[in-house]
Amino acid sequence: MPPEPQITTATGKGPDEISGFERALESLTHGADLRVWSVIVTLFGDLARNPGDQISGACLGQLTDLMGIKPQAMRVALHRLRKDGWISSEKTGRTSKYQLTKSGLEQSQTAGARIYAQHATNPDSFQILVAQPMPVANRTMLDQTLARHGHVVIAPGVYLGAATSGPQPEECFMVQGAAGSVPDWLRTMLAPEMIAQGYAQLETTLHEVTAILDDKANLTPAEVATLRTLIVHSWRRLLLRHADLPDSFFPANWRGPQCRVLLANLLDHLKRPELAGLSP
Amino acid sequence: MPPEPQITTATGKGPDEISGFERALESLTHGADLRVWSVIVTLFGDLARNPGDQISGACLGQLTDLMGIKPQAMRVALHRLRKDGWISSEKTGRTSKYQLTKSGLEQSQTAGARIYAQHATNPDSFQILVAQPMPVANRTMLDQTLARHGHVVIAPGVYLGAATSGPQPEECFMVQGAAGSVPDWLRTMLAPEMIAQGYAQLETTLHEVTAILDDKANLTPAEVATLRTLIVHSWRRLLLRHADLPDSFFPANWRGPQCRVLLANLLDHLKRPELAGLSP
Repeated sequence: MPPEPQITTATGKGPDEISGFERALESLTHGADLRVWSVIVTLFGDLARNPGDQISGACLGQLTDLMGIKPQAMRVALHRLRKDGWISSEKTGRTSKYQLTKSGLEQSQTAGARIYAQHATNPDSFQILVAQPMPVANRTMLDQTLARHGHVVIAPGVYLGAATSGPQPEECFMVQGAAGSVPDWLRTMLAPEMIAQGYAQLETTLHEVTAILDDKANLTPAEVATLRTLIVHSWRRLLLRHADLPDSFFPANWRGPQCRVLLANLLDHLKRPELAGLSP
Repeated sequence: MPPEPQITTATGKGPDEISGFERALESLTHGADLRVWSVIVTLFGDLARNPGDQISGACLGQLTDLMGIKPQAMRVALHRLRKDGWISSEKTGRTSKYQLTKSGLEQSQTAGARIYAQHATNPDSFQILVAQPMPVANRTMLDQTLARHGHVVIAPGVYLGAATSGPQPEECFMVQGAAGSVPDWLRTMLAPEMIAQGYAQLETTLHEVTAILDDKANLTPAEVATLRTLIVHSWRRLLLRHADLPDSFFPANWRGPQCRVLLANLLDHLKRPELAGLSP
């Protein structure tokens, strides 16, 4: 009788040797098409979004290696992020240190306020902006400008946001105050099917990771940093692609709120490591 | 040398014989294309909009005769208004009495609140309604429904009104509160050129009538009722064809506010006569 075939994973180890970290990593990256530059944006936003925070090239290399990102892919991503003015680097001897630029810090902190919020936004005041009739090309530009202030298009040239979303653009008429009940067509408009499915999948993943980490919690600081980055990244790429409106504006089967709770628990469990403790 | 040709008016009298009433009448009806049924709606709304108020056929005949409306035209108009459920009539012997129906009373009182208001509406709270995407035909129906509640279309499927305008229709999303500054494109949209011109013309007319009545005030109750009807009618047909929004929502050259002041002074001067004193 031949021996049972050895079950192996991508790391080449047998099932008994697979660590909690590896199982969590597998759950978080399975089927995900990670854009390296975007993961690095999340990484800096999670670990180094205070002025003066720096991450060494060696540390970056270690964390991205743990994620299965190849050195060449990381170098390309860092080059792009420097060129885009998102990060800057300084070299001392053979050591490179990377940090967010002023603009990168500002944008990370703005996004961070939404990403790490314990509760969904729940303003008691909203604003609707109505733009004057204009050619589609101009309106598309206005759509983009207002999206940056947190407004979402709910009809051509009509924008909805929290009352704190931003100033009234000169060409728009605004009414600001309480919102009436949210009709189903608006819920559907605010909750694109792809993002709804993404949240449903993320909920499953975060449940898995929670179970894995409850089971085995022997993680190195670098492993904690790696998992945090991947968890925040999977949340961020859904969250920042839909309107920042209260949970009550989304359909009943929208799993965003559940993901937020799972995320908060996981990040509470995986405390953000000190940068100093990370450098290999 | 032949005698100078005698200047005559439609009444066949010489200029010295033209009364203040006739001059005011000429000013109010000159160039106006009066729809008889609509004038009668104004007449009932001004003189007989309380439950139980009745106007005799003889009195109606006298007032419309003073306006230069032919008996046949009045009979056609009364027939139409009865058929439309606006007025009802009862006959005792040779005497007919006319009165507003329940629906006619309600609509007269609703319109009256706006027509006779001493000041333009000035709510501190407005509402914008946004309808779901729908075929144009359905939207046109919604436009009409919401117009009856005082909402004005400011973009396709987007409605603006005072916060008291009415309930939130099921299919619309609503935000209700303070309005921002009113951009020029919206002022222009709210003030159709034809109505703007109408107000400018009405202002001139009301100035003329004011001057005439200041000069000669010997009017019979029937003449007072006739002039009131024509004055209110000329105001009503402009007022009810534009949005019920504060003066600050209209262009600087919009003469609605000036007309409102002139109207109030004239109606104060031409006190509404008792119905009993009118019957010939």
